[in-house]
Amino acid sequence: MAPSRKIPVAILGATGTVGQRMIELLANHPWFEIAALTGSDRTVGRPYGELVNWKLNDAPPPAIARMIVQPSDSPLDVGIALSALPTDVARTVEPLWAEQVAVCSNASTYRMASDIPLIVPEVNPDHIGMIERQRSERGWKGCLVTNPNCASIGIVMALRPLHDAFGIEKMHVATLQAISGAGYPGVASLDIVDNIIPNIGDGSEEAKIESEPLKLLGSLSDGRMIPASAIISAQVTRVPVVDGHTALLSIKFARRPDPIDAIDALVAFRAPEIVRNLPSAPEFPVIVRSEWDRPQPRRDRDAGRGMSASVGRIRPCPLLDLRMVVLAHNTIRGAAGGALLNAELLVAEGIVS
Amino acid sequence: MAPSRKIPVAILGATGTVGQRMIELLANHPWFEIAALTGSDRTVGRPYGELVNWKLNDAPPPAIARMIVQPSDSPLDVGIALSALPTDVARTVEPLWAEQVAVCSNASTYRMASDIPLIVPEVNPDHIGMIERQRSERGWKGCLVTNPNCASIGIVMALRPLHDAFGIEKMHVATLQAISGAGYPGVASLDIVDNIIPNIGDGSEEAKIESEPLKLLGSLSDGRMIPASAIISAQVTRVPVVDGHTALLSIKFARRPDPIDAIDALVAFRAPEIVRNLPSAPEFPVIVRSEWDRPQPRRDRDAGRGMSASVGRIRPCPLLDLRMVVLAHNTIRGAAGGALLNAELLVAEGIVS
Amino acid sequence: MAPSRKIPVAILGATGTVGQRMIELLANHPWFEIAALTGSDRTVGRPYGELVNWKLNDAPPPAIARMIVQPSDSPLDVGIALSALPTDVARTVEPLWAEQVAVCSNASTYRMASDIPLIVPEVNPDHIGMIERQRSERGWKGCLVTNPNCASIGIVMALRPLHDAFGIEKMHVATLQAISGAGYPGVASLDIVDNIIPNIGDGSEEAKIESEPLKLLGSLSDGRMIPASAIISAQVTRVPVVDGHTALLSIKFARRPDPIDAIDALVAFRAPEIVRNLPSAPEFPVIVRSEWDRPQPRRDRDAGRGMSASVGRIRPCPLLDLRMVVLAHNTIRGAAGGALLNAELLVAEGIVS
Amino acid sequence: MAPSRKIPVAILGATGTVGQRMIELLANHPWFEIAALTGSDRTVGRPYGELVNWKLNDAPPPAIARMIVQPSDSPLDVGIALSALPTDVARTVEPLWAEQVAVCSNASTYRMASDIPLIVPEVNPDHIGMIERQRSERGWKGCLVTNPNCASIGIVMALRPLHDAFGIEKMHVATLQAISGAGYPGVASLDIVDNIIPNIGDGSEEAKIESEPLKLLGSLSDGRMIPASAIISAQVTRVPVVDGHTALLSIKFARRPDPIDAIDALVAFRAPEIVRNLPSAPEFPVIVRSEWDRPQPRRDRDAGRGMSASVGRIRPCPLLDLRMVVLAHNTIRGAAGGALLNAELLVAEGIVS
Repeated sequence: MAPSRKIPVAILGATGTVGQRMIELLANHPWFEIAALTGSDRTVGRPYGELVNWKLNDAPPPAIARMIVQPSDSPLDVGIALSALPTDVARTVEPLWAEQVAVCSNASTYRMASDIPLIVPEVNPDHIGMIERQRSERGWKGCLVTNPNCASIGIVMALRPLHDAFGIEKMHVATLQAISGAGYPGVASLDIVDNIIPNIGDGSEEAKIESEPLKLLGSLSDGRMIPASAIISAQVTRVPVVDGHTALLSIKFARRPDPIDAIDALVAFRAPEIVRNLPSAPEFPVIVRSEWDRPQPRRDRDAGRGMSASVGRIRPCPLLDLRMVVLAHNTIRGAAGGALLNAELLVAEGIVS
Repeated sequence: MAPSRKIPVAILGATGTVGQRMIELLANHPWFEIAALTGSDRTVGRPYGELVNWKLNDAPPPAIARMIVQPSDSPLDVGIALSALPTDVARTVEPLWAEQVAVCSNASTYRMASDIPLIVPEVNPDHIGMIERQRSERGWKGCLVTNPNCASIGIVMALRPLHDAFGIEKMHVATLQAISGAGYPGVASLDIVDNIIPNIGDGSEEAKIESEPLKLLGSLSDGRMIPASAIISAQVTRVPVVDGHTALLSIKFARRPDPIDAIDALVAFRAPEIVRNLPSAPEFPVIVRSEWDRPQPRRDRDAGRGMSASVGRIRPCPLLDLRMVVLAHNTIRGAAGGALLNAELLVAEGIVS
Repeated sequence: MAPSRKIPVAILGATGTVGQRMIELLANHPWFEIAALTGSDRTVGRPYGELVNWKLNDAPPPAIARMIVQPSDSPLDVGIALSALPTDVARTVEPLWAEQVAVCSNASTYRMASDIPLIVPEVNPDHIGMIERQRSERGWKGCLVTNPNCASIGIVMALRPLHDAFGIEKMHVATLQAISGAGYPGVASLDIVDNIIPNIGDGSEEAKIESEPLKLLGSLSDGRMIPASAIISAQVTRVPVVDGHTALLSIKFARRPDPIDAIDALVAFRAPEIVRNLPSAPEFPVIVRSEWDRPQPRRDRDAGRGMSASVGRIRPCPLLDLRMVVLAHNTIRGAAGGALLNAELLVAEGIVS
Repeated sequence: MAPSRKIPVAILGATGTVGQRMIELLANHPWFEIAALTGSDRTVGRPYGELVNWKLNDAPPPAIARMIVQPSDSPLDVGIALSALPTDVARTVEPLWAEQVAVCSNASTYRMASDIPLIVPEVNPDHIGMIERQRSERGWKGCLVTNPNCASIGIVMALRPLHDAFGIEKMHVATLQAISGAGYPGVASLDIVDNIIPNIGDGSEEAKIESEPLKLLGSLSDGRMIPASAIISAQVTRVPVVDGHTALLSIKFARRPDPIDAIDALVAFRAPEIVRNLPSAPEFPVIVRSEWDRPQPRRDRDAGRGMSASVGRIRPCPLLDLRMVVLAHNTIRGAAGGALLNAELLVAEGIVS
């Protein structure tokens, strides 16, 4: 499954916080090596280390710091492009690259497009089946694959085994989302220290959480995606936490499970073998916690090297069927790591070589 | 309505954070004067200023600092006792005082007892009608009146006009509660800086939010309280905010309102005249905010000197009927100020003179 | 001393956080009324309430919200201009206004200019004596008066009585400064939640703290200011606190005081009578705290309605003579309130009428 | 140098936050294996996992969670005891163990005792020379070695090369210390969210910082320690940061260095070879940062796996000679990791085998 030589990877939009995480996650990666970094006009032609406002620990690796930033809109001869581009830039740039290169994008631009797979490898790896049709209809030699919104991803990892076993019909979601989800400079400290902001993106975040999980839990028919038919209501907030999105779920199922049955389904949940063996895949996609006060962002966000979702407080709901709390690292699992795992899946499936 | 002379008030459990707020709110009160402070055995006989670990701004007023702390379990000859006692102490101590004195308690101990009114003056002032029966059955000359849990109170202030107009049937509540709600020392900083705790009191907080609003919205029949029949599901969290509890509501009504109709009902909401004229009553019990990102704890908790509830983001819900965000100051409106307003109501209604 | 009618005031740069504080402090002011608000080109001609990103509690007063923003560079016929302009804009705009109008500026641009008084009314009210020379040399009918940097002001209020009694020769200052000192959006939350930034403005903040107190403690000779001759070393940090700058001082005096003598001097410190009676003057310019862990930003910043400096932990220093901790509200005392108090002083001294 | 078999280690006081860090750091340790955990009477005889209030990420390793807690006051047959005991318990318990076992203690109890070495391996490894005299005078077969206070340790790592090159005579220190330094529950969140506490331990923390570095920089003469003769003035604060103590230093030297010379000395600083090869030793004891706003706790505390000190903003001081900012991880380098590195040094030096 592993490639015979390291595959060259370009990071599109490498200077932002998601691009920085991609660089961090690709250090010493067994399959990939960073071949190019792209940025906006302001940054092109300059050494990455001179212009990046590095917001992760320490500093970028010296070899990366010396790389000269390339323009985003001129596709390069690499095996894979990991895209951390802004939504509007992605609109024109990602299709350019996809003509030749496999693009794994964290941008929201094409997530809900009918021929673009939205993939979480542990949840719906079969959706890469859409690529064949995508290539033939778009005339691409490469492809474009997306990962979901940073808040949707943890939720949908918990939902997968529950949906399979009991059928999700309705769900109420309330989120408490970390500041890193807004990028940099992102949320002003005057807005969030000793404070809560009861909305994100003027409602657009809620719209994503209400739609993306349905595509992720949907099924393929003849290369076309048929979304799941559940109804989701989302209420989002921004909280003074650095990393880690918390979601409070209340779910109605087609077949109401006892909490213990839901716990059993979550504990037993494993990714397909091809996914389990990907370099960035966590040992357990879902970690069930039994403490009365977990999961917590600071204590659980790094579970599975930031790639696992943690689920706790699984209990009945007087209104729907079950309630639970889900937490995942929003910039690892929910962004850079999500795109990277998709890239690894494309390699393992032989779509990129 | 105003008393002819200032009524002497005892503060039971004066050293805790709610007791401190009561002292702060009674400074220069037009109707009341602090006549006594009570505390635990450890504190009795010592000057209040020497033993209190004052957690509000500045320091206690000098005249209060010099007062000698009295035992909580020996009722004194005062007009009103404001109780900030711990739940277990309240169990034996509050009935002792109620034999002679009007007790307005913030403790949860007796809130749901069948003959004890649970009152928010703007919401259900008529429930003081239970006092007559309480006195006759218990043989008390005084009485015992309670105010709700710090998270329930803002919610129920928003619900009152909506319930009257549209009939609440089901409600999902997710709360983001401030650290001051846990008293002092309360929440350890290691548990809450850069973190969220997805539970409070091991589930007891959720139980209160699921039950207290039904009593508050209930009706009296022959001196007995018939609770409202709605179903509430609550999911609570503790967040790194000093003061101000935020609640995300999703509500199903008997008659589904348009958002604009709900807004109209909330904007038009006024307390009965006798309540509006109480010294601590806010001009508007509910303040409707139209910004996309309000209410926020730091910016809205002091609305109406901390006694108003702020409501925003009133919008449809794909699952139930309407969603909205409610915020109130948990230690003013939700605790000390709530008890004080109840005391003022007892005076205005002639129950205390 | 009070003016016979309310004096019309223009707020220059009214949309920023300092301008907002000025509006807040001028609500119901006994001497002044807001006659005009100015802003950048982007804002001119639009109602203030529509464009301001209000960052204080609640919302701007309705009458202010309806005012149409004027251009900053066209002086208006008002009695006083309170300037919250950015440093570079102040350079050209403030002299324009000063030709006709008394300008009380919070901008740093002209603070250290030789003919511009830098004033804290409790500290050096006599420095307004520079205005006569300023007017004659500049040909202004108005004048320009400045207040110090938000970190210098609390320090210098504590230093005044100590300098008078013991003569300050050397001082080490370490500051922990609140995020509101950086304006809005100012400090990114990703930079300050669970973090400290050990510098401000790339060293410029330290330069201000090392120079401004010397001018403030200086003396006038023939209309010229002779700065005090002490040496100050400053090390500044930004901390996750909303409002209130803390300074740790270590001071060497010409005559080494016992701590008790320093405490006596601070406790006895009063502003001159003409300053004490200004509407915004605090009753006590310095409040000495004896607790082991005070002053603290959240508990002491509002002392004297945000206009007092709080001083605590006065104790010997093994290196210099005395150590102490000083705290003041950076956007009230240290900015908007400082400019306002200067404006009141000009009225009381008959310079504006 | 490495032991031929894993040495059994007891952790004394294993339930506290420092004990938890010791467990975390000993997972997969190449030289040591955890053989016993001790705790207070309340915990003895129970499985560790059932009683510990685990405050680090995730949960304790399953094998550790199953271990039965032993009493602290009955020495066991292990090679090394790592002590995270409270100060008062350490007083009687540590000498009991030292009769037979090498005790590496993080407690402050014996740090300044004349025959107890206070050691940071990169700074003063030769001080283990005191053990011979300690054993002969106390009649111990084991020994007792201590590591310094969590705030002193980063400072003294930066001071070592500077003292060697230029001779430190005077130093002013202002610290901004993380909440984890106070243990659990430690600092109440109501005291530190949106706040600063300008003191720690009522002055005792300052006393440690003013004395411990002098012992660490002292020299041995005939088995007795002669402390360095500098004067230190410390002012400490607690800040809302989870991990990582920041210190602002201003230093007077016997030979005033240019900043560039100080930087050169810090960059060139290496531990002795025997120390460099210890399993927990960082590659670089000191990391010099050139950014204008570093070191920062969140971004630099994990440098060298939490074992390096980071130094930045090295610049002249108008009062003394040089100023700089030092940061180190207080619960790794400054506590559990410090004790562990001392234990490794004892093995490498052949004192434990």
